[in-house]
Amino acid sequence: MGDMTTTPASAPAPAPAPKQDRSRATRRRLLEAAVACLAERGWQGSTVSVVAERAGVSRGAAQHHFRTREDLFLAAVEYVAEERSQALRALDGRSRAEVVEALVALYTGPLFRAALHLWVAASDEPQLRPRVTELEARVGREAHRMAVELLGADESVPGVRETVQGLLDMARGLGLATLLTDDAPRRARVVAQWSRLLDGALG
Amino acid sequence: MGDMTTTPASAPAPAPAPKQDRSRATRRRLLEAAVACLAERGWQGSTVSVVAERAGVSRGAAQHHFRTREDLFLAAVEYVAEERSQALRALDGRSRAEVVEALVALYTGPLFRAALHLWVAASDEPQLRPRVTELEARVGREAHRMAVELLGADESVPGVRETVQGLLDMARGLGLATLLTDDAPRRARVVAQWSRLLDGALG
Repeated sequence: MGDMTTTPASAPAPAPAPKQDRSRATRRRLLEAAVACLAERGWQGSTVSVVAERAGVSRGAAQHHFRTREDLFLAAVEYVAEERSQALRALDGRSRAEVVEALVALYTGPLFRAALHLWVAASDEPQLRPRVTELEARVGREAHRMAVELLGADESVPGVRETVQGLLDMARGLGLATLLTDDAPRRARVVAQWSRLLDGALG
Repeated sequence: MGDMTTTPASAPAPAPAPKQDRSRATRRRLLEAAVACLAERGWQGSTVSVVAERAGVSRGAAQHHFRTREDLFLAAVEYVAEERSQALRALDGRSRAEVVEALVALYTGPLFRAALHLWVAASDEPQLRPRVTELEARVGREAHRMAVELLGADESVPGVRETVQGLLDMARGLGLATLLTDDAPRRARVVAQWSRLLDGALG
């Protein structure tokens, strides 16, 4: 999904073709609209038409980019997960408490809400399930990798891998709790306490 | 919902009226069928008719017990949560690791799956949302109370309350992870490690 064109190091970067630019911008608008739609309306309420309208794109153009509804929503969740992952990288060098807070924030925003709707729909829809399972595993591995790096965790020490996994499971559980009630003050207290436990466990 | 009749201690227990018995048994069958149905088919696929058929009860009889679809499914999730809470009480006196395992198991079975479908549906349906939010808060408070008791946690010590809350959030997150992939071996390793950390934190 990245830019696959290669440019010789010595050549000046060519001016991007305006048409290709427009196509990329349309694709991005569709992906962002798809995540917002899924987060707000759930799977049942999220159709290609609804997303196209929200993105200000014709239904035909949307189908040019994404052949099926499943293609659109899987790409959307993956796209936003990659954006968030980029944002996490900027935290390198911050304190452990700040990193834990940022990791928990990953699971309490619209992306998590959108992903949750997709997971729940996938658990009942056989044609969606294997693709969502694969995507979720990939996004989960990336989150774990980032967490280990940012927390400065040494996974060669017994128990450290499971400590980090448990932390991400807790973040996911906190995200679920915010689905119905936004309990930010409670969440902040739990995060502060578990950051302390984590400090003890990671040394 | 409990048995509200009172019997003087000295009198022999009266034989229960068969009609009342049948009515209670029907109600229980409907509640159990509703949870199973919600866990397997999700909110969209769970109608009163589907549940009545599964319970072997006429649609009219189902509506005699539960006036609306919302009434049926809220009562079902509450009923099963109470059953699980009763089962937890039997763990009194077990080791901390066993208690943590049992608490996590609360969030990885069909009850959690059913509740999750109800939460996700409620997050999009204004008429369902306040009732599910209230039920979830009540069930959550009870789970916290039981966890504190069974873990022998002293909440007057700073941080202990948040430690137990974080543990239940982690259990919820582990339950969410099992929605698509059943990762029981990973779960067991995370639970074992966090039981050790918990031992350190609770003293």
